Amino acid sequence: MVAGLALSIRELPDADFLLHGNEEELARLVAQEAGLAGRVTLCHADRVVTMQDKPSQVMRHGEGTSMWSCIESVKQGAATAAVSCGNTGALMALSMIRLRRLPGINRPAIASLWPSRNPGGFNVMLDMGADVKAEANDLLQFAMMGASYARNGLRLARPRVGLLNVGTEEHKGRAELKEAHELVAQSAEAGGFDYVGFVEGSDIPSDRVDVIVTDGFTGNVALKTGEGTAKLISDFLREEFNASVFSRLAALFALSTLRRLQKRMDPRRANGGVFLGLNGTVIKSHGSADATGVAAAIRLAHQLAAAGFQERLAARVASAMRPRQDGTDGATPSETAVGTGGGTKE
Amino acid sequence: MVAGLALSIRELPDADFLLHGNEEELARLVAQEAGLAGRVTLCHADRVVTMQDKPSQVMRHGEGTSMWSCIESVKQGAATAAVSCGNTGALMALSMIRLRRLPGINRPAIASLWPSRNPGGFNVMLDMGADVKAEANDLLQFAMMGASYARNGLRLARPRVGLLNVGTEEHKGRAELKEAHELVAQSAEAGGFDYVGFVEGSDIPSDRVDVIVTDGFTGNVALKTGEGTAKLISDFLREEFNASVFSRLAALFALSTLRRLQKRMDPRRANGGVFLGLNGTVIKSHGSADATGVAAAIRLAHQLAAAGFQERLAARVASAMRPRQDGTDGATPSETAVGTGGGTKE
Repeated sequence: MVAGLALSIRELPDADFLLHGNEEELARLVAQEAGLAGRVTLCHADRVVTMQDKPSQVMRHGEGTSMWSCIESVKQGAATAAVSCGNTGALMALSMIRLRRLPGINRPAIASLWPSRNPGGFNVMLDMGADVKAEANDLLQFAMMGASYARNGLRLARPRVGLLNVGTEEHKGRAELKEAHELVAQSAEAGGFDYVGFVEGSDIPSDRVDVIVTDGFTGNVALKTGEGTAKLISDFLREEFNASVFSRLAALFALSTLRRLQKRMDPRRANGGVFLGLNGTVIKSHGSADATGVAAAIRLAHQLAAAGFQERLAARVASAMRPRQDGTDGATPSETAVGTGGGTKE
Repeated sequence: MVAGLALSIRELPDADFLLHGNEEELARLVAQEAGLAGRVTLCHADRVVTMQDKPSQVMRHGEGTSMWSCIESVKQGAATAAVSCGNTGALMALSMIRLRRLPGINRPAIASLWPSRNPGGFNVMLDMGADVKAEANDLLQFAMMGASYARNGLRLARPRVGLLNVGTEEHKGRAELKEAHELVAQSAEAGGFDYVGFVEGSDIPSDRVDVIVTDGFTGNVALKTGEGTAKLISDFLREEFNASVFSRLAALFALSTLRRLQKRMDPRRANGGVFLGLNGTVIKSHGSADATGVAAAIRLAHQLAAAGFQERLAARVASAMRPRQDGTDGATPSETAVGTGGGTKE
């Protein structure tokens, strides 16, 4: 965490940082990194949440941990966004009870970036595992929140949203997906996105869509399947290039090309799952992230904070939750305010 | 189909083939391929099922199509196994109503091979999309059937079975998964497999497990996500090797290595989804399969037919469905018969 902070802090001259944990240990680590002095405030916590702790236990007895302290700093307004590499379930549980859900949001979601053929290099996918299920109305809220994240995180004026299914025909899939298909189509205008309909697993890295909406069980399986497949291919590639003297020679010639490929597929570039639907921005970094990965998550937190993402998302959700009959399915107040300023984001 | 048949027929001297479709057109195609004369019987059908036809329509009005004729030849015992590249939903629907489910089977499943780190190069995964959901008892039946397929299709004496979930801890996942976790663990001995517990998406291509059990929605999304990821990496690899004169030169040096990788990841080698749980063996080839892919599906059909897979699977299912209290949770009759012959398969 401290090494990642040191990597990112030079690029973010306007930001200050609160570091939660054992003060003595953190002070020692911070002193070793150039550039951190004066930019980092230490917030002591006696305990930590471990990867083995059950979310329900952490909700009840988590006070005094660094995770609790970190979420609390967002709740109190001392921090604009939280970044953690810790236990995902516990982080979501603490975020839910301390920050509370945005009015009208039933299930918060975790949104992640996925390497894609789109010009920006990434698509957004949610839910990646905040909850193991989602009803039609939850999927609608995911579409609204995912589109908002794509506008502020990927700087897309009008994101294209798709619902993940086992086929693109309207009669396919589970009952809640058919219902969500109607709901999302009706809300595209109010949500400021284009709805492209059902998409399949093969479309996740495609340029057909910017935001892929699914339940947290399917999203988590898809994410890990994609990671597992990429790892398998990378292992096979390494094995084949190590197979003979000739192939090892070929690898030398191909080294710079293979490095470019590796960089393009580097999961650390996309590190950071954003919790959407809460009164505060929380970013979950991969548990095994190194300094490069942590720095990516911190940059993402900074970008969302600088864009006023939390306020924009809350305004969009509030507007979408307003009953249709009051005739405000067009521009929202926040959108109008930004619109006159020449912005295209929400 | 005819070109794939010509590729595979030389390796299968003990097999004969029934070819269903327009007799005139098929006769012309068969005449063009060496080695097919005298080995192929043409079965005329006036119509075909298209990729756009709805399964429910094909169930009611499918008589007279080549797909119907093909399934009928299995039902009548004229064929031991069916291979089709057609509409998956229609093929499953026709197979269900014409062949009927095995006694005790609630939901049939589609099992596919997945490239893996295991010595044989493949894992088995099911259900890949026969149905969009599965209850705990369906997942148990998938485990039994998948283990049987792994014994006969992958020649594994005692397959390791895992349940796909969003984490490996026992408290994670959906309610039906927790219930299935207990059921599968209790049935491992009777099913002749080892139960490794919950596995994650990243384990699908691993050597931790041989058979991955999941519902048809999740299985289908995972399959297509894996395919999409492999395609993205392969596209990026091609782009990077085409990026400059130097990288194109490097590609020349690396050509044989890259070809070996391509062969190892070639989806055509794993072509053929097997419908499990019916009174008859039906294999679904990928709709876009070329001759190499079709030949792989035909070889798989031949292997399963030669192993007496259908009878072994039916015996295993019948034994598993027998109430526990009759004390036959050990060897089944079929297993004993094979056991005395020195075989390790079921």
